[in-house]
Amino acid sequence: MATVEGAHPVTAPGWTARRYADLALVDCDVHQKTNSPDELCPYLPQAYREQVIDQGLRAAGSGYFTVPDNLGRTDLAEGYDADANAFHYFNVGHSYEAFKETHLDVWNIDRVLLTGLSTYGACVQPDAEFGAAVCRAFNDWTTEHWLAKDQRLMAAIGVTTRDPRLAVEEIHRLGEHPQTRAIVLPTGNTMPYGNRFYHPVWRACEEHGLVVVVHPGNEGFGMAGPPTGVGYPTYYIETRMARPQMAMAHAVSLIAEGVFEKFPRLKVLFDECDQFWAVGLMWHMDADWKSLREQTPWVKRLPSEYFRGHIRVGSQPMLEPENDDQFFCMLDAMHAEETLVYSSDWPHWDWDDPATTFPKLPERLHRRVFCENARELFGL
Amino acid sequence: MATVEGAHPVTAPGWTARRYADLALVDCDVHQKTNSPDELCPYLPQAYREQVIDQGLRAAGSGYFTVPDNLGRTDLAEGYDADANAFHYFNVGHSYEAFKETHLDVWNIDRVLLTGLSTYGACVQPDAEFGAAVCRAFNDWTTEHWLAKDQRLMAAIGVTTRDPRLAVEEIHRLGEHPQTRAIVLPTGNTMPYGNRFYHPVWRACEEHGLVVVVHPGNEGFGMAGPPTGVGYPTYYIETRMARPQMAMAHAVSLIAEGVFEKFPRLKVLFDECDQFWAVGLMWHMDADWKSLREQTPWVKRLPSEYFRGHIRVGSQPMLEPENDDQFFCMLDAMHAEETLVYSSDWPHWDWDDPATTFPKLPERLHRRVFCENARELFGL
Repeated sequence: MATVEGAHPVTAPGWTARRYADLALVDCDVHQKTNSPDELCPYLPQAYREQVIDQGLRAAGSGYFTVPDNLGRTDLAEGYDADANAFHYFNVGHSYEAFKETHLDVWNIDRVLLTGLSTYGACVQPDAEFGAAVCRAFNDWTTEHWLAKDQRLMAAIGVTTRDPRLAVEEIHRLGEHPQTRAIVLPTGNTMPYGNRFYHPVWRACEEHGLVVVVHPGNEGFGMAGPPTGVGYPTYYIETRMARPQMAMAHAVSLIAEGVFEKFPRLKVLFDECDQFWAVGLMWHMDADWKSLREQTPWVKRLPSEYFRGHIRVGSQPMLEPENDDQFFCMLDAMHAEETLVYSSDWPHWDWDDPATTFPKLPERLHRRVFCENARELFGL
Repeated sequence: MATVEGAHPVTAPGWTARRYADLALVDCDVHQKTNSPDELCPYLPQAYREQVIDQGLRAAGSGYFTVPDNLGRTDLAEGYDADANAFHYFNVGHSYEAFKETHLDVWNIDRVLLTGLSTYGACVQPDAEFGAAVCRAFNDWTTEHWLAKDQRLMAAIGVTTRDPRLAVEEIHRLGEHPQTRAIVLPTGNTMPYGNRFYHPVWRACEEHGLVVVVHPGNEGFGMAGPPTGVGYPTYYIETRMARPQMAMAHAVSLIAEGVFEKFPRLKVLFDECDQFWAVGLMWHMDADWKSLREQTPWVKRLPSEYFRGHIRVGSQPMLEPENDDQFFCMLDAMHAEETLVYSSDWPHWDWDDPATTFPKLPERLHRRVFCENARELFGL
C-alpha cells in the first residue's frame, strides 16, 4: 500500500474530500497494547519485574461489566486464546502489523496518535514509583514495537499524576523524541485536571509542545472514586454515559482555574467522550461567567473562547442525531471547524472508520475535521 | 390582582401566547424558606427542638463560595438583617406575601410548585430520624404558611432518602393532601436515583401520583461525595456546571435500572440543571443501548422513549445559544414540546420571569412549555 502523504486519500462512500498533495487524514485515537504484562518485563527494573511476575500489574478495577474481552475486537487479534483471558487490559494484544493491515493502510492514514491503554491505571495506582515504572516500560515498549516501525505513528506517552514530579521526569525524558506529540491521561482521576496540583505537568507539556489527551479510563476504579457526581452507577452503559459528564467536569475545571491563561500554548484533546457536551458547556459557562467572574478574576475571557482556542474533541463515538439538520446544527454550535478531530478508537468494538464516521460532511468541514484541526493541534 | 385561572395571562414583550379560558401559566420551581430554624421548632419533637436550639440544623456543607446571601435575593426579603447572616440556608426568608407581590400576581401565574430548600440536606444527614423530623417540620410549616393561603400553590414535599422507609411514611402522611403534587430531592446524594435502594420511594410516589422533582442541592456536601465524576472542583461556577452532569447521571441511572418499566406511571422533573444535556444523552444512550442491551434486558425500549415519556426538564437557567437557529434546533432535538416546562427559580439571584425566559417562542410550543407539559405532569 502507498504511504505517500495524502497522495491516495480514501475514496469510499461518504468520503467528501478531494485528493491533496499533503496531509489528508489524521487519526487521533488508536490503541496499542501488549499481549501480556510479560512483554513489559524487559523494560522494568528488576524489583518491579519480580513483582509483576508474582502479582501482575495490580491495576485497580471497578467491578463493572464491559463487553466481552474488555473492549477489544478479538477478531483482530493474532492467535487469540480465549482460555488466556486473564489479565485485565492485557488479554488481547494488537500489533503494529495488525493495525497496518486492518486500518492504517486500508485508509491510507497520514498520521496516527497512539493513545495506549496500559498506563492509564498508573494515575490511580497508590504506589507512584511503581506506576511511573509501568509508564516508562510501556512507553519504551511502544517506541520499540510501534514508533520505530513507522514514521506515521505519533505517541501520546503515558505518565502518572500520582506524583507530578515523576510525570514531569517522563515528559522530559521522551518529550523531544520526534514522534512524541502528546501525553495521555484517563478521565478517572482523583481531582479535576484544572487543579493546581497538576500544573507542573502542564508546564512540562507546554515546554515540549505536547498535547494533553484525556481519554476514558479508571471510571470508578479504586481511588478515582465514583465516576459520576451522584455516586456509583450499576451498569457499563452508565459508565459510558459518564464519559461526557467527566469531560465536562475536566474542561470546566481547566477553564475556571485559569490553566489556559497560565499556559497559553497548552492544548487539551478529549477523546472518546462524545461531542455535543461542548455546546451546553460553552453556553452555560459563558452565561455564568458574566454573573460570577468576580470569583475567578484570572478567567479574563469568555469560557467559550478558551474552549475554542485550547480544547479539542475526538469524533468517536460520534453522536447520532435524529436527522441531518440537527447534526449540522450541533456541529455548527460546537464550532466543529475548530474543535472536532477525527478519532477512530481502533481496535475497540465500537471503533469508527473514516468513511462511515461522517457521511455527507461538507468538504470544507471535512478537511478541518479529518486533517487541519489535528495538524494545527499537533504542529504537523 | 385577578386570580381567575388563565383569564389574564401576561401581555409582556416576548409573550407569544393568547388568552385562554383555563390554565395558561404554571411555574414548576419556586422556593419557600423560613427566616430561621427557630420557625421550624414548633413543628419538631421536643428532643430535636432542643438540639436545633443548641446546634442549629447541622446541615452538611461543601465549603464552596456561592453568591452573597447563599443564592437568595436580599432585595426581596422583608426586614433583612445582614448581621443575622448566620444560618446556612436560613439566612433570608421569603414569605408567601412577598412571593405573591413580586411574582405570583405580577404574572398571574395559575399554578406554582413549591420546591422548598430546607429539606434537601436531610438526604445527606447521617441521622435519618433527625432528617425525617426536619422534613416533617418543614412540610408542616409549608402547609400552614404557604399552601393554606393560596390554592394556586402546590407542594413538592421534602423527604429523606437516608432511610427509604421514612420517606415512604412521609409520602403516605401527606400524599393525599390536594396540594401535594410531588416530592423534591437534591441532585447530590449517595447513589444515583435509579438504584434499587430508592425503589420503595418511587413506588409510594406512583401510588399517590406524585412527581419526583430533582433539584440542585448537596453538591459536594458531606456524604454526598464529590459533585463530579472526577473529584472535587474548586469554584462555585464549577458546581453550577456540575448540575447538568448530575442530572445526566441520575437520568441515565433511572433508565438503565428499568425504573420506568417497574413504575410505569412515575414521572421525574429535573429543575435548574439546564436543558440540552437531554439531547446528547438521548442520542448517545440510544446508540449504546442498540449494542449493549443484552446487559440490561429490562430496558425494553429505546432510552429516548423512556426519557420523552417520563422525564421533564425545567427551563431555568435557560441556556443562551449564539443564535436563534441553534436555540430552536436544540428545542426541537430535546423534544421540548413534550419535555420542557417553565420554572422560575424565584427568588434566587438568577431567576427567570415568564416573559423574558423565552422571547419569540412559537405559540404552540409556548403553550406546551408554559402550561400543557406541566398540566400533564401534575395531572391538573
